[in-house]
Order: sequence, then structure tokens, then C-alpha cells
Amino acid sequence: MNRITSPKNSRVKEWNKLKRKKGRDKAGAFIIEGPHLIEEALKHKAEVTDLIIDKSFRIPSDWHTGNMTTWVATSSVIEELADTETPQGVVAIVQAGSKEMELSSDGSYLLLDGIQDPGNLGAIIRTADSAGADGVILGNGTVDLYNSKVLRSTQGSLFHLPIVKGNLLEWIPRMKEKGIQVFGTSLKGGIPYTLSDRISGYALILGNEANGVHEDLLASSDQNLFVPIYGQAESLNVAVAAGILLYGLKEGK
Amino acid sequence: MNRITSPKNSRVKEWNKLKRKKGRDKAGAFIIEGPHLIEEALKHKAEVTDLIIDKSFRIPSDWHTGNMTTWVATSSVIEELADTETPQGVVAIVQAGSKEMELSSDGSYLLLDGIQDPGNLGAIIRTADSAGADGVILGNGTVDLYNSKVLRSTQGSLFHLPIVKGNLLEWIPRMKEKGIQVFGTSLKGGIPYTLSDRISGYALILGNEANGVHEDLLASSDQNLFVPIYGQAESLNVAVAAGILLYGLKEGK
Repeated sequence: MNRITSPKNSRVKEWNKLKRKKGRDKAGAFIIEGPHLIEEALKHKAEVTDLIIDKSFRIPSDWHTGNMTTWVATSSVIEELADTETPQGVVAIVQAGSKEMELSSDGSYLLLDGIQDPGNLGAIIRTADSAGADGVILGNGTVDLYNSKVLRSTQGSLFHLPIVKGNLLEWIPRMKEKGIQVFGTSLKGGIPYTLSDRISGYALILGNEANGVHEDLLASSDQNLFVPIYGQAESLNVAVAAGILLYGLKEGK
Repeated sequence: MNRITSPKNSRVKEWNKLKRKKGRDKAGAFIIEGPHLIEEALKHKAEVTDLIIDKSFRIPSDWHTGNMTTWVATSSVIEELADTETPQGVVAIVQAGSKEMELSSDGSYLLLDGIQDPGNLGAIIRTADSAGADGVILGNGTVDLYNSKVLRSTQGSLFHLPIVKGNLLEWIPRMKEKGIQVFGTSLKGGIPYTLSDRISGYALILGNEANGVHEDLLASSDQNLFVPIYGQAESLNVAVAAGILLYGLKEGK
């Protein structure tokens, strides 16, 4: 066991840089906190390099810690690294890795155009996982996947399906070539989602909280859908809309 | 025009108490911020008593300010009263009022059992509004409706439909007497929501983020539903589940 007693330890300082996007991009790593997320990471073969635990934390016997370094740290070190006030005695460093996403003609995919709120991105990834989606593509302007609030809101779903960054204008034709139908979403045009003519595989584009899906993307989709508003709200929260649309398209056929 | 130049002004101190639930309960009033929420409040006849504006804020001509007192305050006063960093130059004091909710046999209602996250409660209310629901009942343990983050997340929908506090165990038999079907939600039992035997009016019970719907409530419902999980997620975010269920029940018949 290695011990760390001061938040000023040079290794802690390095890890601390992972709290910002710039530091994560440079190191190709991110921090996760709490037993649930760490368990999901380990179960799904994410590359956990370091486990930093409080001295009272008992490592569950089914955590395979062979390939990682375990550090026993003081509470002040754990608190320094964690984003929540109650990290439950454990944080871990995970390699971001380079993910690939293969398209399948009967798969379902989410294309995210500038989702900015971390809680929304996390909830959308959790919803995509629940609905059995085969991948998520994070388009330009989307908040960083490894932001601590995004990670927390995914409830571990980020380890369950491929999530890549990409230029959506390039992905749309690749989807179409594969025979995957591409649905945009727009309040101003298109048809109710219940009337979509989905045949098999599909991709759904969801847009920025304030501005929706970019016009260029709407123009290159096969069909644009909307969720009808029956009351006086102007729109739905984007994660809620993701759920209605993914389940509506799934259960509809 | 009345002017307020110091955050230490006694009226500001009184309003400041509305930032906490205890103060809101005592005064029967709450604070809203930003032009959009205030416009929704005015449009839907909420009782706005005080409008507190920055000297550069121009009151839109369609705001009927006749029954309220307008105060021109310094930015520091507005910032003191607001919860966000950018209150956009205007906050208002609104009377909570006493809302009544009448049941209709073909109406749709949401019963919330201990929703704790303010963002979730706000998103659920916005979703209920979007789906054309006729009312929301806030059961025990549900976060305060007038919490600033709840208000913001509703995007104004709290002014669009009746929202009352109540004991859900008392409301369920009242619903049933009216011929309104009561659906519980549970991951551990019940049937997929797509198979529900909904006839006309219905109430949907949604539960606490960690513990779900209380067993006593599940036992008194007509039927319990769940949203199928096709991937590896353990559950859905409760606001997302609300959207899938409300739209599924609505569009299903």
C-alpha cells in the first residue's frame, strides 16, 4: 500500500489537473468517484490505473485491483480530488482510451449537437443505455463527457455503450450509406414522432438546450420529428425529449 | 418609482428570507428571477406584489404592473436576492396563494412521492405541462416547489397547471372514486407501460430517486407499470421516466 498524507503531494497535484478539461485532454485520463461508478468502470473493463481510498474504505472482494496502484490517502486528499461533498471514501483515475464505433444497419444511435448542461448530457447517456442504443456521438459544442457532473449523471452508463466525439455533418452520410435512417428533431418543422416511418436502424439528432439542432443538420436528415406539446410549455427538457423519442421509436415498431 | 440602494435595506432583508423554505412558508411568498419567468407569472395571473429592477432594465410594455410596487435597485441588491449569477436585471416577489385542484374523470394527474432533486421536480412539472396533464400533487418528502432551482427548471410551467401539496394515500382513493385509474411505477413489479389497460383518466405515481414509490402507495394503485430497460442501465432518471410514461399513456390510446 502506498500512502499519501498531503493534498500538496506532487501526484495529487497532477491528478488535480484532471478536474479541468484541459488537464484531462492532455493526460487522456479522468477522475471518477464513489464505489458505484468505480464498480461499473471495473466491471466493463475501463482502464483504471489508480485507486485512491480513505483508510476506512474496504475494497470489495470482487474488485480486481491487480492492474492498478492502490493509494491510501487522508480524507483531505480525497476531498481535494472529488467534486461531491461525499465521495464515500474512494476516487479512481481512469484512462480515457480511444473508442471506436462501428455502425450496424439495424442499430440505434444518438447524435448530440451542442448539449451544454452536464446533467442533461449524463441523463441522455443513461437514457440511451436504458433504451438499448448502440452508440452516442458527441458533436461540436457538447460539454465534455468526463466533466464530473456528466459522469455522475450517467450513473455508470458511459461504460456500457460506445461514446465518441465527432463531426455530425460527417457522420450523417456514413449513417445513410449504411441504410440507417437519420431523424432530426425540431419544434418548427417535421412530423410528430408517432408518425415517423422508421423501418429498422435509426439515428436521432438532439440539439442544444436553447437553440435546438443546427439547420445544416436538419437539412441533411431523412426526416425531422417533434414531440407534440399539449399544454402551455414551450418545449421539453432535452433529456426528457430523448427518452420520449427513443422509447417512442423503439416501442412504435 | 421607489429606490433601494443597499442590500442592508430592511425590505431587502425581509425578501432575503424568502430564499429559504422556512421564510417562504411563513410569508406565503417566493422569489422568481429573470424576465421569462416573470412574464409567465404575469400572463397566468400569479399575484406578483413587487418587481425589483436594475436601473438599466426596461419593463416590457405588455407587463401589467398596476397592482405591484416597482423598485429600482442597485445590481448588488438584485444579486443578493437572486440565485443565479445572471438574474438579467429583474426579480419579483410572488404570493404563493392557495391552490385548489378539482378532479375530472378524464383528466391526467401526477402524484410525486418524495422527489428530492430540484432539477428533477422542475423538469417533471415542465413535462407534465407539455403532456397536457391536469395537475400535480406533491407528496411528502418532495422538495419545495418554490426552491429557486425548481422554479427555474419548470421554465414557467408551474404557472400553467394546478400544483398542490398533499398526502398521496388520501388522494388515491379520491382519484379512484372519480373513476380515475391510478398507476404506480416500480422496477420490481407490474407490467410494461405499453401494456397498460388505460381507459380514460389516469394518475401516475412517480417515486423518490433512490427508493422509488413507497410500498403502501404501490399497494393501493390499480396497476403498477415499469419502463423496460433494454441496455445495462439500472434505471432511468425520474424526469425522463415521467416523459416516457406520460407520452406513452397519452399516445397509446
